[in-house]
Amino acid sequence: MKEEMKFAVLGGGSWATAIVKMLTANQDTVGWYMRNSDAIGYLKIQKHNPNYLTSVEFKTEQLFLTDDINEIVHYADVLIFAIPSAFLMQELEKLSAPLDDKIIFSAIKGIVPETGKIVGEHFHNTYNIPFENIGVITGPCHAEEVAMERLSYLTIACADPKKAKLVAKNLSSNFIKTKITKDIIGTEYAAMLKNIYAIAAGIAHGLGYGDNFQSVLMSNAIREMKRYTKRIHKIDRNINQSAYLGDLLVTGYSTFSRNRMFGNMIGKGYTVKSAQMEMSMVAEGYYATKSAYQIKNDFKKKVKTPIIDAVYEVLYENKNAKKVFAALTEKLD
Amino acid sequence: MKEEMKFAVLGGGSWATAIVKMLTANQDTVGWYMRNSDAIGYLKIQKHNPNYLTSVEFKTEQLFLTDDINEIVHYADVLIFAIPSAFLMQELEKLSAPLDDKIIFSAIKGIVPETGKIVGEHFHNTYNIPFENIGVITGPCHAEEVAMERLSYLTIACADPKKAKLVAKNLSSNFIKTKITKDIIGTEYAAMLKNIYAIAAGIAHGLGYGDNFQSVLMSNAIREMKRYTKRIHKIDRNINQSAYLGDLLVTGYSTFSRNRMFGNMIGKGYTVKSAQMEMSMVAEGYYATKSAYQIKNDFKKKVKTPIIDAVYEVLYENKNAKKVFAALTEKLD
Repeated sequence: MKEEMKFAVLGGGSWATAIVKMLTANQDTVGWYMRNSDAIGYLKIQKHNPNYLTSVEFKTEQLFLTDDINEIVHYADVLIFAIPSAFLMQELEKLSAPLDDKIIFSAIKGIVPETGKIVGEHFHNTYNIPFENIGVITGPCHAEEVAMERLSYLTIACADPKKAKLVAKNLSSNFIKTKITKDIIGTEYAAMLKNIYAIAAGIAHGLGYGDNFQSVLMSNAIREMKRYTKRIHKIDRNINQSAYLGDLLVTGYSTFSRNRMFGNMIGKGYTVKSAQMEMSMVAEGYYATKSAYQIKNDFKKKVKTPIIDAVYEVLYENKNAKKVFAALTEKLD
Repeated sequence: MKEEMKFAVLGGGSWATAIVKMLTANQDTVGWYMRNSDAIGYLKIQKHNPNYLTSVEFKTEQLFLTDDINEIVHYADVLIFAIPSAFLMQELEKLSAPLDDKIIFSAIKGIVPETGKIVGEHFHNTYNIPFENIGVITGPCHAEEVAMERLSYLTIACADPKKAKLVAKNLSSNFIKTKITKDIIGTEYAAMLKNIYAIAAGIAHGLGYGDNFQSVLMSNAIREMKRYTKRIHKIDRNINQSAYLGDLLVTGYSTFSRNRMFGNMIGKGYTVKSAQMEMSMVAEGYYATKSAYQIKNDFKKKVKTPIIDAVYEVLYENKNAKKVFAALTEKLD
């Protein structure tokens, strides 16, 4: 690796903005790609993102802002993707600059809907990027609390510990603590599965289940996540670490989580379509549910996933949420 | 065991009231001891507990109410104690009736402050009751949700599975699901430890830590609980089951938890004494902290308990909560 590695963040949302904020504490200049050139124009004058984490003020002389994805790829050595997975493919289609010697970190926490792959696998399969140049940045971390500089812990996963350390060091500050792991597959699947469990929590809440049930649901969810990630990639993994259990809890207990909100509307009787229209966006967990369900159906050795199954039946088989969850309660303990 | 076992609940609080409600769904008559005879008089006329879960209406002809603890002991075969641990000793001092052939279940979730023992051990040591006649009823379960008949899952622990099944059957209903376990020691310690972690969550919240930190704290707490219960009583135990993780979550995430509220006041700058006076009661976790700390100091093989240690330092060594928690954040991951 070079002495001085240049970092860039791709994305204009709240998580992208939070990561840029983290990096500016450690790097003289941080690259930042947003497809929305109006937002860039606004940011240059008003010193904050017009749409997300508006309280975070940037020193714009510290930012290398561009709406040209190829320019940002040329600029940086480490590319941190924080684009919603639903838009990733259409962004990558603009790409002509090579990704060959880049280090790619995903902060996306989702599945690429077109391929059903987690982001790391997508980059590996499509761009031939070796796994030791691919990493994952995972929470538990609400971007909003980064804006407020509330203490948060990130886990940085990469097969190559040197690269994990590099990224960890550049995200760390007096309010961000980091740890590294080699479990790139497990952390990324966990980050994806937790969105399904957040939808389940939302559905349950919408149906009138209370806090007692929520705690039982989360206790079953973490056991299901353990079984699932073990089948995907068996390594020595403590599922109760922050990157797995912590991430599940921060999302599953958050009333601000878009996935939980989406589930809540379903539980209250909205159709999937009307809930999506009402939210004017698609919750990551919606795609994750389909992929996680299909992936586990392809497992040679079956694994019990009653919660994923229930959410799948409600979202994709148009089954009655109340009945599906009544049946689910019999499978939990 | 007899064909027809008579059940009685001892205690006048919300958890006692909730358990009486559960039992009345299965038993023609349920014994109920309350030391407060005014409350009994009120209940007989108004059909509900005057002070707790007032929305729960009882058929009083189904209740055998008494303010005489010896009468209730004579009456029942299965005694379910739901008296706050701080008052247990003074209640038991009134006892002249023998407990010899009684089945004793604890729904107390605390430590007996005078002896530093969990309730099951206290009955075993003081009354020579064999462990196969002692059991534990544990959540995750807010009594308030039982009042609303919201689905809740209980775990019933007893060394003798027949007795666990008997109690489980009599608590079950369309809104109460039960499972049984032999892990009487682990469930009771977990129920006690979770109150300490709820105090920690409250202190953190009072100090201004946010949801990101809360999830990291809970993720560390469950690992600490696993280490602790393993050292106390090593058996094959999945700490992520509802009786352990679920119980931790329902308390640690509850803004109604008295332990969390107590911690919150400490975090906001109240002294221990003023917080206790303000709450006009003592949170169970206050005693639990001292006992858990002393017990683990007696372990031959040491176990890392940074959260218990931090709460102990704040509550019993008069250390500055802000500084203690700043140091704690360095020990979590």
